[in-house]
Amino acid sequence: MPLQPKRTVSELKELRALTGNADGAQRVAFTPTWIAARDFLKSKLEGLPVETTQDQAGNLWITLRGESDQELWIGGHLDSVPNGGWLDGCLNVLAGLEVLRRISKEYNGKPPLTVRLVDWADEEGARFGRSLFGSSAVSGFFDPEDLKQRTDKDGLRLEDVVKAHGIDLNTALEAGQAKAKAAAYLELHIEQGPVLEALGLPLGVVLGTKGVERHGIVFHGQEAHSGSTPMRARRDALGAAAKLSLEIREIAKQHSDAVCTVGSVKTFPGIVTAVVGRCEMTLDQRDLDAKVLGGMLQAAKSASEKFALEEGCTVQWNKIWSIEPIPFHPHLIELCDQAILETCSVSHKLPSGPLHDAAEIARVGIPTVMMFVQSLRGISHNKIEDTLEQHLELCVTAFDKLASKTLDWLQKP
Amino acid sequence: MPLQPKRTVSELKELRALTGNADGAQRVAFTPTWIAARDFLKSKLEGLPVETTQDQAGNLWITLRGESDQELWIGGHLDSVPNGGWLDGCLNVLAGLEVLRRISKEYNGKPPLTVRLVDWADEEGARFGRSLFGSSAVSGFFDPEDLKQRTDKDGLRLEDVVKAHGIDLNTALEAGQAKAKAAAYLELHIEQGPVLEALGLPLGVVLGTKGVERHGIVFHGQEAHSGSTPMRARRDALGAAAKLSLEIREIAKQHSDAVCTVGSVKTFPGIVTAVVGRCEMTLDQRDLDAKVLGGMLQAAKSASEKFALEEGCTVQWNKIWSIEPIPFHPHLIELCDQAILETCSVSHKLPSGPLHDAAEIARVGIPTVMMFVQSLRGISHNKIEDTLEQHLELCVTAFDKLASKTLDWLQKP
Repeated sequence: MPLQPKRTVSELKELRALTGNADGAQRVAFTPTWIAARDFLKSKLEGLPVETTQDQAGNLWITLRGESDQELWIGGHLDSVPNGGWLDGCLNVLAGLEVLRRISKEYNGKPPLTVRLVDWADEEGARFGRSLFGSSAVSGFFDPEDLKQRTDKDGLRLEDVVKAHGIDLNTALEAGQAKAKAAAYLELHIEQGPVLEALGLPLGVVLGTKGVERHGIVFHGQEAHSGSTPMRARRDALGAAAKLSLEIREIAKQHSDAVCTVGSVKTFPGIVTAVVGRCEMTLDQRDLDAKVLGGMLQAAKSASEKFALEEGCTVQWNKIWSIEPIPFHPHLIELCDQAILETCSVSHKLPSGPLHDAAEIARVGIPTVMMFVQSLRGISHNKIEDTLEQHLELCVTAFDKLASKTLDWLQKP
Repeated sequence: MPLQPKRTVSELKELRALTGNADGAQRVAFTPTWIAARDFLKSKLEGLPVETTQDQAGNLWITLRGESDQELWIGGHLDSVPNGGWLDGCLNVLAGLEVLRRISKEYNGKPPLTVRLVDWADEEGARFGRSLFGSSAVSGFFDPEDLKQRTDKDGLRLEDVVKAHGIDLNTALEAGQAKAKAAAYLELHIEQGPVLEALGLPLGVVLGTKGVERHGIVFHGQEAHSGSTPMRARRDALGAAAKLSLEIREIAKQHSDAVCTVGSVKTFPGIVTAVVGRCEMTLDQRDLDAKVLGGMLQAAKSASEKFALEEGCTVQWNKIWSIEPIPFHPHLIELCDQAILETCSVSHKLPSGPLHDAAEIARVGIPTVMMFVQSLRGISHNKIEDTLEQHLELCVTAFDKLASKTLDWLQKP
């Protein structure tokens, strides 16, 4: 049997036993457990005619040389958050390994194009708060000066920690030279959301990653005694924040796949006997359509000003971070849809709310697509993260079909 | 001139210079600055035919013996919060001193009833979190075992700290024996709220202290990724809390003097990228009418259950503290109203949202009333706390008239 999806499931379990504990996966980037995961991957390469190299940004490349210099990339990440799940990131790598084995066997070690499996370094950014470390060094959206400022919770500097893993921040961007030969990029991932499960579908085609607008909002009213201040005399900062918390949900619901979230509310002085004088909140808005995203941001700003006025407050916005929507490649989306239909007869197209390494690769113009497999209960970044084994097997099969179709497409004149 | 209201203003300024600094009043109970304030008060008693004693709970009593054993009490508190205002509590004591001087002079040191000025110990509870320390020992609503558990922020035990001031928690309740002879209790206070200022009135009669229901409320939903979780799939604990924060204001507005406040909201995990899985909030509800207060609590509970259901959450309530409404004495309310009308031609009756020592005395059946003088901007517990000097003088005059009327009333057969 050329492709053995059951082997991928079995290797995922091996990796879980090696790098997880009762609290979940512990493959945090730049730790000994992460190295153990990479050593596990390397141990699975014996007998495969591949070269293994680490680039200037710490990404691990497994290269099967083909007839052409043109490269098909297949990627994932072995690193996890602390107490993470057994599938997030490493499913992609181990499924990619199985696809590499199949291609190597089918073409007797010499496929028409070069095929490279990449394990991106520190996708999660769990330790230093900077996700997509390795893939952004390749895309070029990587700022060594920003990274030099970062430390972990123990005060260790990112710069020193990565140096021990052979990475010099000053030269990490040289990893981007690899882009020149990349013809396409494919990534498989668990959905990490509830959409496919709710539809009863095992697999989906990812249309792209949503753009994100992330802002801090502060309402200033007047702290006042909860006993002596009549309702009509109050300038209640929480009142304005509560109205906005509810309104941003209505704003999101006007667009089919958009999401808007207030994840944090902080009240000051924050005591039972005082009307809230200052209320800080965060807003996270996402959509695949840049116009929709921009409209939602404007709607939230207008609403915040209206509510501030109603409550006798003032409002300030501070941008935390934003990224534009990154749509995937139209033809690869069609190939992915076909691969899924051929595997399980039913497919679904959906955007990705979370970012992925694929977004870094797509944003520099390399044709890219992702495939999602159903997540049980939509839960990820948690030890209870899970996917049915039959769905794991299906996704390896479908992802392999996608790789085949992509190789065929890339060979066309 | 028998009564000299300007002297009270001048003594308040002396006390401010002696016990305040650039950050405000620093007369925290059981500190050297508080002792300095009490020494200042004692220094003002020279020439007055009074006895000065400290009771078992640390209250300072200045007694002008009269023809009868029956006692008229006039009270206040010299202690302040840290960085407090120059009037809160000590206006009452120094105005009471001026009234005592007038009565002593009018009756040649022997009024028809015994008149006692009391400086209650630790009204604010700023250091150990237990307000109304001295007056509650007199009323009997004082739990030595609870107090023995309390420490200040430096870890010093309340029991040890008060012992250095001559107070043994095991015998403090003996201060309550004084109640037997009390015929009435009068207290003057700054309003600490914006009502009189908004009405353009200097003085008001206090109808009683509002009952308080204070509760913690927790909504449990489901933490979820802000990017991958569609709006319709969310169980947003903040959504339920925001709805309740707004609804409790509508509940309060259905009753003329009621107040309802959400002073604290805490979100968990409280990060920009997660839907709120758990939201903790506090509720403080106050009204002078026990039925209204009970109805507001029930309405808030019903609303919380409705919103929990709408948001797919559960809700839990935990009582923090409550006290019943404490109405003041109907006839003393009328006498206070007359005293104000005779002083400045216009009066207003209002409940007190904050608690006061007067509530402890009223709740054990001693006829009690309070008079409020306007607070500028409604602000207290802050160095900018202030009242117009002309209003301070008016309040001393009106409070003295109230004392006269009360003495007359108590002498009637």
